[in-house]
Amino acid sequence: MGENGKPLIQSFAMNGGDGPNSYTKNSAYQRGVVDAAKEMIDGAILEKLDLKSFCLGNIFRIADLGCSIGPNTFIAVQNIIDAIEQKYKAENQTHNLNLELQVFFNDTVENDFNTLFKSLPPSRQYFAAGVPGSFYDHLFPKSSIHLAHLSFALHWLSELPKEVVDTKSPAWNKGSIQCTGYVKEVADAYASQFKNDMRTFLDARADEIVPGGFLIILAAALPDGVLMSQTVMGMHHDLLASCLYDMAKLGLIEEDKVDSFNLSSYFPHVSELKELIDENEYFKNEKMEILNNPWSFELQTVETVFSQIRAVMEGIINDHFGNMINMDNLFENFCHKLAEHRLTCDQKFCKNTELFILLERKKFN
Amino acid sequence: MGENGKPLIQSFAMNGGDGPNSYTKNSAYQRGVVDAAKEMIDGAILEKLDLKSFCLGNIFRIADLGCSIGPNTFIAVQNIIDAIEQKYKAENQTHNLNLELQVFFNDTVENDFNTLFKSLPPSRQYFAAGVPGSFYDHLFPKSSIHLAHLSFALHWLSELPKEVVDTKSPAWNKGSIQCTGYVKEVADAYASQFKNDMRTFLDARADEIVPGGFLIILAAALPDGVLMSQTVMGMHHDLLASCLYDMAKLGLIEEDKVDSFNLSSYFPHVSELKELIDENEYFKNEKMEILNNPWSFELQTVETVFSQIRAVMEGIINDHFGNMINMDNLFENFCHKLAEHRLTCDQKFCKNTELFILLERKKFN
Repeated sequence: MGENGKPLIQSFAMNGGDGPNSYTKNSAYQRGVVDAAKEMIDGAILEKLDLKSFCLGNIFRIADLGCSIGPNTFIAVQNIIDAIEQKYKAENQTHNLNLELQVFFNDTVENDFNTLFKSLPPSRQYFAAGVPGSFYDHLFPKSSIHLAHLSFALHWLSELPKEVVDTKSPAWNKGSIQCTGYVKEVADAYASQFKNDMRTFLDARADEIVPGGFLIILAAALPDGVLMSQTVMGMHHDLLASCLYDMAKLGLIEEDKVDSFNLSSYFPHVSELKELIDENEYFKNEKMEILNNPWSFELQTVETVFSQIRAVMEGIINDHFGNMINMDNLFENFCHKLAEHRLTCDQKFCKNTELFILLERKKFN
Repeated sequence: MGENGKPLIQSFAMNGGDGPNSYTKNSAYQRGVVDAAKEMIDGAILEKLDLKSFCLGNIFRIADLGCSIGPNTFIAVQNIIDAIEQKYKAENQTHNLNLELQVFFNDTVENDFNTLFKSLPPSRQYFAAGVPGSFYDHLFPKSSIHLAHLSFALHWLSELPKEVVDTKSPAWNKGSIQCTGYVKEVADAYASQFKNDMRTFLDARADEIVPGGFLIILAAALPDGVLMSQTVMGMHHDLLASCLYDMAKLGLIEEDKVDSFNLSSYFPHVSELKELIDENEYFKNEKMEILNNPWSFELQTVETVFSQIRAVMEGIINDHFGNMINMDNLFENFCHKLAEHRLTCDQKFCKNTELFILLERKKFN
């Protein structure tokens, strides 16, 4: 719990609008996840989705959970719709899609829905709605969603594990802003929070998704045996932490304030994630495969990586430090360190693993 | 059509946020409409809604069309839900509402949905979604809404009739910013647009509302035989027009620009509205009664009336005049004129009529 007994819930809102630092303009990495998944989504829907059995009402409802503000969510949704259309036409031997599609774009209430709505594709062939709220809560009536999709968002925890900011706890995460993996107590606290969140997430979706419906998750994970700080993304977080501590050393921000800053995100190991999915009684694990993201951080320029990280992190940092921090100074230093590390140490770090996970809501529960 | 061949679609977005000029803080008049309707909504749902017949799926879907940003929409929705709950419990002889409620808040894409979402009642017992788009378009899949509600929004036309800004047309509305009622050609152009819009609106809702479902409309209209400029609201618009022409005389804005400014709103006569409703083959006109709004403009201070009008008009004026107009100057002058008129001429002006209209989607079409 936070200072006033409130849960340590972090704002996950990506930078809004469509300016130079916006998520809209700086989400090519996340776009890579979506692109890489297209073929797998096609396969899943064409081969495995029992469209006939639950389309008696002629309405097919799709939810994109943790959608942010586009354009990736629109591309992901269109990929899904294209596959459904292809399947429907083949099954019904028709050229017309006599199926009405309704798409629910979900993200937390801090998300910039105004920008999302204004950028909806004008030629879309679906009814659009925005749903504000955490995907750890119930968001939809029972059995009302046919396909839910979650891209690159499962690593955001519902709240920060309280031990990691408790100076008296062995899990106090001093000197770092993430679960590096080096301190067992810290890793356990994060893993335990992730486990609870994952169970809550799957149970809520089990209520909302119709029997036979799909839950498609694109998730970042750690290769088994690799620690977060040994991955490229973990290295980025550690560099950002060192920039914050640099500012503390210069007296620009308080060290205590940096100590109490921790990312509410956790990247599970592949086997850990699989175990949590397999233990859920409502979903059948149909597929869990490694995605090949062509937009890996390794292949991008320092500037692109930098912009993408800033679009995600700026709001979170601002939420914790408020006006006391000069964001341009912080990210300038970060950019320098990033450039140095890219020249010297990239080979030492692992890629994070990105997974395509296809779950089917079981029919008899 | 506008200068570039685009339809003359006006931004209807009320002032966003929750600052001193916001719609949120200045919508007591519209709130009066909602309050006055509560008893009638209760009666309609308790006496006439065939809840059993279409709640087999245990989901009841409500749409509030043209909802703006609250708080009125939340109050209206809660009134509806309270009545449904009461009806359900009585019908099923139970203390539990085994019915899941999903509420769609609709307004145009310019509406401030971010503020709407942030002010959703935390204790709400429904699933909330926002739907961006004009209610003259289709917004929902076929037969997917059980009750649609539209409060004080039907007077906003889908677009401005093109004749009223055509300097060569006999319907050119020079010297006014509204359909005053004095010039037959202008009134005909507005009435014709309203007729088309009303047909489009009802046909779209006929598709979306389940047979037996309700369409509840709270609408402002003119008493038969009374012209818009003879009503209090019409007088307000005429005063605002005179303030704009004052600015033109002072050379602060161009007179042509004022001539081409017209409100895309039209208040039909009661009989005119009834005729358009009765001609629609999909809806049964169950009730059409006069509402008694306790928050009539007449009973409020000049400051309150002024603030309410500014919250509605500022965005529309800004949309047309852009940066060339000093909004504070304009509204200062308006406030003076309003105060003068309130002292001298209020008796001369009629109240606008506010109507409660209950339509049932026919079951056999």
